[in-house]
Amino acid sequence: MTIHTVLFDSADKPVKVPTGTLLADAARLAGVEIAQPCGGQGRCGRCAVKVTSGTVRRRSSLRLSPDDLALGYALACQTVVEGNVAVLVPPQERIERRLTMDRVAAEVSVPPGYNYEQNQSVRRYALNLKPPTMEEQTDDWSRLQAALRQASGRSDFHVSLPLLRRLGETLRAGDWQVTAVIETAAWDCCRDCPARLIDLRPGLAEEDEPLWGVAIDIGTTTVTVWLVDLLSGQVRAQVVDYNQQIARGEDVISRIIYAGKNGGGEELRNLVLDTINGLIQLACKRAQITPGDIVKATVAGNSTMIHLLLGIPAASIRLAPFVTAINEVPPLRGAEVGLTVHPEATVDCLPGVASYVGADISAGVLSSGMDEDARLTLFLDVGTNGETVLGSSEWLVTCACSAGPAFEGAGVQHGMRATAGAIEEVWVNGATYEPSYRVIGNVKPRGLCGSGLISLLAEMFLVGVVDKGGHIHVDLPTPRLRIGEHGPEYVVAWANDTEQGEDIVFTNVDIDNLLRAKAAIYAGFTVLADSVGVPLEAVERVLIGGSFGKYINVEKGVQIGLLPDMPWERFQFLGNTSVLGAYMALLDHSARSRVQDIASRMTYIELSADNHFYDAFTSALFLPHTDVERFPSVHALQSSAT
Amino acid sequence: MTIHTVLFDSADKPVKVPTGTLLADAARLAGVEIAQPCGGQGRCGRCAVKVTSGTVRRRSSLRLSPDDLALGYALACQTVVEGNVAVLVPPQERIERRLTMDRVAAEVSVPPGYNYEQNQSVRRYALNLKPPTMEEQTDDWSRLQAALRQASGRSDFHVSLPLLRRLGETLRAGDWQVTAVIETAAWDCCRDCPARLIDLRPGLAEEDEPLWGVAIDIGTTTVTVWLVDLLSGQVRAQVVDYNQQIARGEDVISRIIYAGKNGGGEELRNLVLDTINGLIQLACKRAQITPGDIVKATVAGNSTMIHLLLGIPAASIRLAPFVTAINEVPPLRGAEVGLTVHPEATVDCLPGVASYVGADISAGVLSSGMDEDARLTLFLDVGTNGETVLGSSEWLVTCACSAGPAFEGAGVQHGMRATAGAIEEVWVNGATYEPSYRVIGNVKPRGLCGSGLISLLAEMFLVGVVDKGGHIHVDLPTPRLRIGEHGPEYVVAWANDTEQGEDIVFTNVDIDNLLRAKAAIYAGFTVLADSVGVPLEAVERVLIGGSFGKYINVEKGVQIGLLPDMPWERFQFLGNTSVLGAYMALLDHSARSRVQDIASRMTYIELSADNHFYDAFTSALFLPHTDVERFPSVHALQSSAT
Repeated sequence: MTIHTVLFDSADKPVKVPTGTLLADAARLAGVEIAQPCGGQGRCGRCAVKVTSGTVRRRSSLRLSPDDLALGYALACQTVVEGNVAVLVPPQERIERRLTMDRVAAEVSVPPGYNYEQNQSVRRYALNLKPPTMEEQTDDWSRLQAALRQASGRSDFHVSLPLLRRLGETLRAGDWQVTAVIETAAWDCCRDCPARLIDLRPGLAEEDEPLWGVAIDIGTTTVTVWLVDLLSGQVRAQVVDYNQQIARGEDVISRIIYAGKNGGGEELRNLVLDTINGLIQLACKRAQITPGDIVKATVAGNSTMIHLLLGIPAASIRLAPFVTAINEVPPLRGAEVGLTVHPEATVDCLPGVASYVGADISAGVLSSGMDEDARLTLFLDVGTNGETVLGSSEWLVTCACSAGPAFEGAGVQHGMRATAGAIEEVWVNGATYEPSYRVIGNVKPRGLCGSGLISLLAEMFLVGVVDKGGHIHVDLPTPRLRIGEHGPEYVVAWANDTEQGEDIVFTNVDIDNLLRAKAAIYAGFTVLADSVGVPLEAVERVLIGGSFGKYINVEKGVQIGLLPDMPWERFQFLGNTSVLGAYMALLDHSARSRVQDIASRMTYIELSADNHFYDAFTSALFLPHTDVERFPSVHALQSSAT
Repeated sequence: MTIHTVLFDSADKPVKVPTGTLLADAARLAGVEIAQPCGGQGRCGRCAVKVTSGTVRRRSSLRLSPDDLALGYALACQTVVEGNVAVLVPPQERIERRLTMDRVAAEVSVPPGYNYEQNQSVRRYALNLKPPTMEEQTDDWSRLQAALRQASGRSDFHVSLPLLRRLGETLRAGDWQVTAVIETAAWDCCRDCPARLIDLRPGLAEEDEPLWGVAIDIGTTTVTVWLVDLLSGQVRAQVVDYNQQIARGEDVISRIIYAGKNGGGEELRNLVLDTINGLIQLACKRAQITPGDIVKATVAGNSTMIHLLLGIPAASIRLAPFVTAINEVPPLRGAEVGLTVHPEATVDCLPGVASYVGADISAGVLSSGMDEDARLTLFLDVGTNGETVLGSSEWLVTCACSAGPAFEGAGVQHGMRATAGAIEEVWVNGATYEPSYRVIGNVKPRGLCGSGLISLLAEMFLVGVVDKGGHIHVDLPTPRLRIGEHGPEYVVAWANDTEQGEDIVFTNVDIDNLLRAKAAIYAGFTVLADSVGVPLEAVERVLIGGSFGKYINVEKGVQIGLLPDMPWERFQFLGNTSVLGAYMALLDHSARSRVQDIASRMTYIELSADNHFYDAFTSALFLPHTDVERFPSVHALQSSAT
């Protein structure tokens, strides 16, 4: 009988078990809790864990997709140990969301007019070299350069030492027929700078053989990778996974703190690299290529994510005066960053603006097109940092307003992310105060996600359960209103209707947190508008980006005073604008210049030291606002209700 | 009693000995011969070995200089084992040369008009940054760039990932006072390319604190390193050692073959890196700095040496059509090359022209100044490859003429290098045919070095012992002429006068080898002159470079037909022109451009496929030449002698 060790991420030390032991049993031995609602029959899929190293055998993989399997997921109740293994137990909600996640990504359309020859800075050339003779003894590198010069029209080329070491062999292996990939210009170089040789392979590539690139968006929560054929511009695979750094802190602040601990930065760097490289592997598998075929990558993400990816200390982001080490990262290469793409691949981290307005926002603005649109546009990323951009083709101002994580379900007693079991929309009857709601995944409710919270607060306000100041009126004639452990509260779902068998409530403390969050965002764009002297009403479009943006109900957002009161047709949801911007910059050199231009044009306004912001914030702490005239539609609705 | 292993480089496996065993005894046990002429009393120094790893204790180090000790030399008869050690037993002549080597290097004068501010591409700036505030939140890198922009007048800067990772900490450790070193321009970049940050340290450097660079010449036999203060231009240390690659082949061809074996290239690379890094360490010790203080290096050497240093396969250099992988190496960094200088230091390998006309020759031409001189100049590197350059400020042609190693003492029965015991000059009495000679180191002779061979051949020719065709006349009335094992021979020294107790002879076979060597060199520059249609007599200066150049006697060189027959004042010995050229390129950006220009201007003429060369070679196989009119002074001397 062979004995193996099994190490769970949340356990202090590994446990020893014989071959054939179920992961679920090993977990029990290690004191690690794994949910098994179906009783260990492999039907519910809730006991999914991620095997990060070692050999296991899956008896069944029901509820797991090929992608899940490729990423290492396994059902703890159906998987046995066959070697020393390391196992990550993801939080329940991650598993559930994974199970309910829509795996059919929307098709991305290639930017109109994309032309590889005109727009792409990475170019491929099939070269037929004349072999050297005793009469013509040019050195290999000069010979290759001459051919490249003729093919590309560029005059000078740079080559790295690793490529030089393989140069002679590659030229001769292809009998002087080779395919070269070069970068004609990095974003920070002048047109006369030498072009850079990225790859050289024996033989001549077919003209229509794809040339591979990836657009990467590193979110604090999820990481997205798009695999792109740079020739056609087509997105050939879209993959998403949770950022493995989540295990070391949910938000950027806790990650920065963790990174400051001994070895913490290196650990976080490896976690996000594992996430990205796993996704690259998965995307490549779909396209039947290897990661080494990828010759270019663009990366978007908030400033903390970019710092952690590159192993650059992020401490100064967290501490006043809140500065990054770098906003405009120079062009890097695959090997030095630690990506499994071609070692010489260009890795281009898009530019950020400030500690809390990162490359994800620059990329978002790029993909929104607001920087080229004459209309006055407000761009909102409704999340923890509440990044906001106001402007047009003429000017851009931006701020981050520290909304806090209430909209992501944190700091709220029954808050949760927008996954299975989350109440995502609520209606409250104005006469009986009885709620009705919609739950994600059509299961019993387990809590309230951001859109559910917004919807609930708006309804409670409109029917008079909550007043302008956010206070719950417990004296109304319904058992749903009561004094709970944390003061006044409203029961959204009774215990016997819920997953966990206890009441789901919404308390005055929760409301205060939500009010602070919405007030911060509202105050943010108010201050932006004031700073440039335009009234909010002048805003012609409100674009909502970030993955959270998908879930907001505009009407309810206006009713609680999170969004400005204007006709609904002015609002537009853009989804993940960050990866879309990274994709555009990946394809088009001029889009890359544009995002650079966007980052340098955006005037950053620091709110934490701004009295004006504090005043605006205080005024916005009411429902919908101290100044009801700012919210005529809500005012009208209230008047008609009463 | 502790047992240690001692591994000698020439032994198959290590021997085991107790602590305190003499290295000499361990050698005996291992079957390795170490000379001990003084009987193991530590007086003669001939048993010097190099301890390459492990701990030993030296009882005495008489005859060893502090430099020797720093390089690991120890007397085998006076040194005991105190741990597992590895020992290199250098060939006797290496030790003797080391013992007799002139350690007082000639002072190098700084190029006239050297001005750090105008000429140096690596610059240092002491910067006083304004700390960030809540009102001014520029990121660290932009802040540093702004200060650098103001100080240097340059607009853009590049920074590497390792430096970025230390950026925030360095700025804060120096309380926003830092010293930055930047490279304003690499040789292959346009003026608008971003400058590159090489080093950043907390605190402000003193204005006159040296800024360190090294000029490196990698010879096939010896490696030279000059440590230079880039501010003043002064050479602060000059160190020389044998190239450790010698153990794997004496000439470039055998090294290329060795490099082609499995792991051979990596081994040779490490050997030359060990040599260079050892010398850098030694030079730094003298200047009381550390290798990491060195921010710039220039490297000269023949094409094979440069390829081996960089780990680039050199096989194509040896095989027709004899091409290098690269002649103009792009700028590299300390860390990627493997030098112990600052990891971000610029490592600039000077450009070569062809497989057998390398950067050592380009650097030699640079230091000779012939490329800027209107006079027609012939530059000769009399060595195995016999590199030759002819030209002026108007044009330059070059060739390599495969002289073979005869001038370095190889392929000649009693040939040896120019070290202690080598006969370096010979006079033969025209009446008695008795020789007299001068020996290096004033010891008993052991053989003949290049200059001794030239001198001897010239004398034997002039007194009629050897005829025009190189045949020895054994019928002359002297016991010194006889038929030996290899045919006719001349006894230069009788057994009881020699170190080894056997006759030192000079045979007809030796003469044939010497004739081929001198004929190759003479034919080389004849073809060069013919190729551009100038008569040899038009040559106004003959410059002799390379370390071998120091030992040639012009008069004798002309008499055997190695050097062209012209007034002696036209000849000039330049010593190690390669390291001098590297030093000039290290200091002055325009000298660096000049060497680039020299390399591209030099028209290379391949002799191995040239019938004209073959004819010229055949004609030059005589003493001094088939065409005596080419050697009027020799003809006159002969006429007067007869």
